[in-house]
Amino acid sequence: MGEKTAQRLAFHVLKSPPEYARDLAAALLALEREVRLCSNCCNLTAQDPCAICRDPQRDERMLCVVESVPDLLAIERTREFRGRYHVLHGALSPLDGVGPDQLKLKELLARLHGQPASPVQEIIIATDPTVEGEATALYLARLIKPLGIRATRIAQGLPMGGDLEYADQVTLARALAGRREV
Amino acid sequence: MGEKTAQRLAFHVLKSPPEYARDLAAALLALEREVRLCSNCCNLTAQDPCAICRDPQRDERMLCVVESVPDLLAIERTREFRGRYHVLHGALSPLDGVGPDQLKLKELLARLHGQPASPVQEIIIATDPTVEGEATALYLARLIKPLGIRATRIAQGLPMGGDLEYADQVTLARALAGRREV
Repeated sequence: MGEKTAQRLAFHVLKSPPEYARDLAAALLALEREVRLCSNCCNLTAQDPCAICRDPQRDERMLCVVESVPDLLAIERTREFRGRYHVLHGALSPLDGVGPDQLKLKELLARLHGQPASPVQEIIIATDPTVEGEATALYLARLIKPLGIRATRIAQGLPMGGDLEYADQVTLARALAGRREV
Repeated sequence: MGEKTAQRLAFHVLKSPPEYARDLAAALLALEREVRLCSNCCNLTAQDPCAICRDPQRDERMLCVVESVPDLLAIERTREFRGRYHVLHGALSPLDGVGPDQLKLKELLARLHGQPASPVQEIIIATDPTVEGEATALYLARLIKPLGIRATRIAQGLPMGGDLEYADQVTLARALAGRREV
């Protein structure tokens, strides 16, 4: 939390009745006590396994790998993906001391090697289109492919409403390289 | 030109020696007199056909259709495309009175139906990822396909350096739909 947000919170608490501060404190303690990682997909949850892993309507043949829980929520908001997730809780960044062991990769491999045999047929690698996210995607693809599972990467290109004229060169080059039949 | 840019230009002229204003005026008149549309691709040029249409090194089997000359220049800056262009000078926008007749479509069809037979094998539709650009892309694809030419569309997805968490829902949905094998 930044200084501004902290200040806004402090003033909000001071303006509110005294029980508000007590309720908020209790809620924060409950948050810390009750929210844990889903033992299956590493999503945040109060109940293990999480609601997505428990939902029998979700397609267990599709697995979407994301860096963080906010990324998972962003994909959920699109309502376009009906498979399951795996949250890495980070991306490879050797300069910051984040190697494969700091990510939830062991947990991912355990899922894919599980008994009975994993139903996963395609893994969508939805790490960010940044240097770290790309490195993580490549690393993941090398882990996944020997297992005979399809590895796909979310598309990079021009964002909706964008203008070619103002697109950066890398984005435009990838939009050209990733062109599709109409 | 906006008010600010005009004011900046005016102060710049006033600060400069008097011959500056005369030279600038002469250059503006020359611009108006000498720059025209390339009779082949509708790019802006002082010499017809334009430098890209004259260049024998450019691959004439690939044609990239753009809305505007700045869009063409943006693609040239990527140095990833070595084919030729066609500039539409706009995008379909019925509410603004821009229909097919207001775009350089007759010129495009004349190129494709030309004698000797057109060498174009693929047309990359690089209109903007906006409502107007998408409508234009669909319209173009319907014109092109019956000619037996491949019609492709530049990729839509996350821009380089972007973050899934802050991507808009349409962009993220398209990034998922447009995923590719790694």
